[in-house]
Amino acid sequence: MSLVVQKYGGSSLADAESIKRVARRIVETRRAGNDVCVVVSAMGDTTDELIDLAEQVSPMPPAREMDMLLTAGERMSMALVAMSIATLGHAAQSFTGSQAGLITDESHGKAKIVDVTPGRIRAALDEGHIAIVAGFQGVSKETKNITTLGRGGSDTTAVALAAALEADVCEIYTDVDGVFTADPRIVPSARRVTHISTEEMLEMAACGAKILHLRAVEYARRHGIALHVRSSFSPKPGTMIIDQPIEGEEGVEAPIISGVAHDRSEAKITVVGVPDSPGKAAEIFRVVAEAECNIDMIVQNVSAVESGLTDISFTLPKTDGQAGVKALDRIRESVGFESLRYDDQIGKVSLIGAGMRSNPGVSATFFRALSDSGVNIEMISTSEIRISVVTRADQLDDAVRAVHRAFGLDSADGEAVVYGGTGR
Amino acid sequence: MSLVVQKYGGSSLADAESIKRVARRIVETRRAGNDVCVVVSAMGDTTDELIDLAEQVSPMPPAREMDMLLTAGERMSMALVAMSIATLGHAAQSFTGSQAGLITDESHGKAKIVDVTPGRIRAALDEGHIAIVAGFQGVSKETKNITTLGRGGSDTTAVALAAALEADVCEIYTDVDGVFTADPRIVPSARRVTHISTEEMLEMAACGAKILHLRAVEYARRHGIALHVRSSFSPKPGTMIIDQPIEGEEGVEAPIISGVAHDRSEAKITVVGVPDSPGKAAEIFRVVAEAECNIDMIVQNVSAVESGLTDISFTLPKTDGQAGVKALDRIRESVGFESLRYDDQIGKVSLIGAGMRSNPGVSATFFRALSDSGVNIEMISTSEIRISVVTRADQLDDAVRAVHRAFGLDSADGEAVVYGGTGR
Repeated sequence: MSLVVQKYGGSSLADAESIKRVARRIVETRRAGNDVCVVVSAMGDTTDELIDLAEQVSPMPPAREMDMLLTAGERMSMALVAMSIATLGHAAQSFTGSQAGLITDESHGKAKIVDVTPGRIRAALDEGHIAIVAGFQGVSKETKNITTLGRGGSDTTAVALAAALEADVCEIYTDVDGVFTADPRIVPSARRVTHISTEEMLEMAACGAKILHLRAVEYARRHGIALHVRSSFSPKPGTMIIDQPIEGEEGVEAPIISGVAHDRSEAKITVVGVPDSPGKAAEIFRVVAEAECNIDMIVQNVSAVESGLTDISFTLPKTDGQAGVKALDRIRESVGFESLRYDDQIGKVSLIGAGMRSNPGVSATFFRALSDSGVNIEMISTSEIRISVVTRADQLDDAVRAVHRAFGLDSADGEAVVYGGTGR
Repeated sequence: MSLVVQKYGGSSLADAESIKRVARRIVETRRAGNDVCVVVSAMGDTTDELIDLAEQVSPMPPAREMDMLLTAGERMSMALVAMSIATLGHAAQSFTGSQAGLITDESHGKAKIVDVTPGRIRAALDEGHIAIVAGFQGVSKETKNITTLGRGGSDTTAVALAAALEADVCEIYTDVDGVFTADPRIVPSARRVTHISTEEMLEMAACGAKILHLRAVEYARRHGIALHVRSSFSPKPGTMIIDQPIEGEEGVEAPIISGVAHDRSEAKITVVGVPDSPGKAAEIFRVVAEAECNIDMIVQNVSAVESGLTDISFTLPKTDGQAGVKALDRIRESVGFESLRYDDQIGKVSLIGAGMRSNPGVSATFFRALSDSGVNIEMISTSEIRISVVTRADQLDDAVRAVHRAFGLDSADGEAVVYGGTGR
């Protein structure tokens, strides 16, 4: 008997009908002879509605209480899913994050999992129950307060439980058919990726592909969990995120590129006229880090010899933008820079593929594709298996389409099999 | 420093504005120099909405999951109240029933409190926090499952916490100004009762006065908790439910009667043509009890000598009616009765007052008042401090008004002080 962990997101649990559909899917998996542990998010817009309520009573809700409030969302959906399964004749029990043993640190709103002790889940499974667990939430180790894991939290709950229970697979159900070579809303000819390595999926997630949160992929990679992303609305096979080749597909030549990701969530701050002397850049980035801004890409212009001044640009999430500008403004005099420029009209396009490691022509093709489409490049950053550039926001869609086409990803020859992660 | 436990019902927490008003009230109590522990119900119609959702996914939701679902309601309101208090500059922390140490048996949907271990509440109060606790819910001793206490549960939570914390008073906030000598919707001249004994309040609650649940009053009486019922919408002083006379009011003559209660929630089952032989009645009531019907009043007619048959009538909650009829139908042949009559068009009017113990004229006045108003009496039941009769449902309002008037309760000489409970 296999143990399957399944995770259903809010869009798969929007209303009573959706919940019944999810329940049927869970029961099918059980009837196929598997032990099943299910992680659920809050229904549809519940979380947004709760945040809205909080804002009505408090301009700055305390984080501890915000977590208490938001965790009501999964509590509702997990109980409803368990009820719906019972109606189909199977025994199901729901468990809060705390009951399921999701032990976290004390950081309300963005807690990190420090331990998983799923004794009650194990017992429920052993008694023949289907276990339904609230995603996104845990209980803090020291104070026993209720915590939430922050963005992508339910995916992380599922992966963490899969690891602790030594599950055979962790299925992430969502409202799309899997991972695509690009966002099908921008590139209609984008193809579903049948397999992708965790390393590539990590880069995809980090570069704005929203299907899986970076953190969940990291957790899966660290613990060797096979992830399977698929749609709760269709029986299609989805995408396997796994570092070992699948049996029977060993002979398939791995493509060079796994996909094109894009990201509209970042802004660019330019620190203008920084004195070109040692320690100035370090001071700038120390202050930005202390303001808890996540810096992504950095560019330092060559300094003009006559002035002795240089410009430093970096990108960060728009949500961190205000904090970053504020923090920098306070050190303007001590660092001695001239001014700050804030630009939130940027986009980032990234090409990801483990195959580019051994294919030196990749970056040439990438830059030629952009230049042929008239896309202006503002910043560049690369890793072993990724190239990212910042463009104007209004050129982003063109950039994605150009790159997707240049690497032959939108040819109509079926689905993409991506195995770069194994180095083949 | 006093310790005050306050309980706010759903109608006091209907929306963000109501929550803010409740928060101000709590903060006032804190600023007056008290430690404050607050028990909250779910907001407004939340519980009904959750039940509705459950019915959409399951015709017979498992009780364990129903409890998990419904407890989301108080979780939301307690977090919002805590946030709103924080906005007013006071530290507040919310706690689930489980965190607050409300330990119950395993009966989902109608759990009984078996222990209260409010260590975390004590600690929060000692740290200067206002503690907000989810009413209506607990955690089962053996299985650690989440339970709910059933009807009147939040009142019971408040009383149980007041007892365990040795609070000075337990204030029950509701949407009316206190306990009245009769329902003001039926008797517009009904007066607020300033003080009433727990014994009389118990009879009031048992006879249909909805302001406090029987169970909470019983708990308060058993643990000697002073209850204070008042409105969250007005600063009026409300009603003290307490067995000791209040200082400064010792000289006040206690009135004979505390109030007139009425109840429309019961139905009457008549078992027609029961053989008048030993054991038949016992068999009937055993079966009804096994069907978990709560029998209230019982009347057995004098049997007709010639037929050797008698009729047995009893009242029970309408919600138990179907189960009662079904159970009895199954023993029709073995007991040998002729037929069953079910009547849900009845009402019950009750006169309550500890003073009637030493006033033999009370029942005469009571029956004369009803007869003068043309109210027909179908069943009678009495205790030391109560007389109840069953009437036709459409005569109930007349009956309440007639009795209220006959005992001088609607004279305009201020508020009623009721002290029958101390025997004075």
